[in-house]
Amino acid sequence: MRADLQIRPVGRVESPLRDRAAAPKQGNEGAPEAWLVFEAELLDALHGIEVGDEVLVLTWLDRGRRDVLQTRPRDDPANPLQGVFNTRSPDRPNPIGMHPVTVLAIEGSRMLVSELEALDGTPILDLKPLI
Amino acid sequence: MRADLQIRPVGRVESPLRDRAAAPKQGNEGAPEAWLVFEAELLDALHGIEVGDEVLVLTWLDRGRRDVLQTRPRDDPANPLQGVFNTRSPDRPNPIGMHPVTVLAIEGSRMLVSELEALDGTPILDLKPLI
Repeated sequence: MRADLQIRPVGRVESPLRDRAAAPKQGNEGAPEAWLVFEAELLDALHGIEVGDEVLVLTWLDRGRRDVLQTRPRDDPANPLQGVFNTRSPDRPNPIGMHPVTVLAIEGSRMLVSELEALDGTPILDLKPLI
Repeated sequence: MRADLQIRPVGRVESPLRDRAAAPKQGNEGAPEAWLVFEAELLDALHGIEVGDEVLVLTWLDRGRRDVLQTRPRDDPANPLQGVFNTRSPDRPNPIGMHPVTVLAIEGSRMLVSELEALDGTPILDLKPLI
């Protein structure tokens, strides 16, 4: 029942954000622009995406702690403990990050996006149109 | 750069939907209620979620084709080919499904939800509050 799944990153984030303490908790809290650098062999999968599109980036928050089941939202000791499935904490069994962003530029298999709070080097798992 | 990540399912979908041809493409197109059956050891991670909450279920669409890079949206031959990252197709390099649902009942580590188009047995990767 719990056999691991093999997930291969489709790219990486290039960002000036280097460590978690300095990163905003959500993209709209002052996150910088960042590049999504996709594997060149996946270029065809980007066909149709245009500058100005709003997309959802799914990442693997590889600096999250996977053994944490409860947390206080926004690390605020005044908040009651919540199950991590009731929060957006990066600490969770499978630390998948979801980031709505706007496409600012496209250069081959590289894409510049707005306001991304993921750290430099974060693996990208998937990209979907934002509906 | 492309080392596999180890992702362990946190549970499974129990649904009357058994095959992809019969499943609606989106939950709001007539999908049935389904149970999310979480691993018992992760019960604490569900703390705080209540009946009536809207949540986002992330799944691993294990019957998707991972070698498809372009598709015609909704399998309609009248639609132009699009990169899979510009669609919600279950065929994509990492077939992660996103399903907004409403919690209808909670029984320990089992949760009944509305309108889920994922097939019976689909691995669950994560659960997040819908914002």
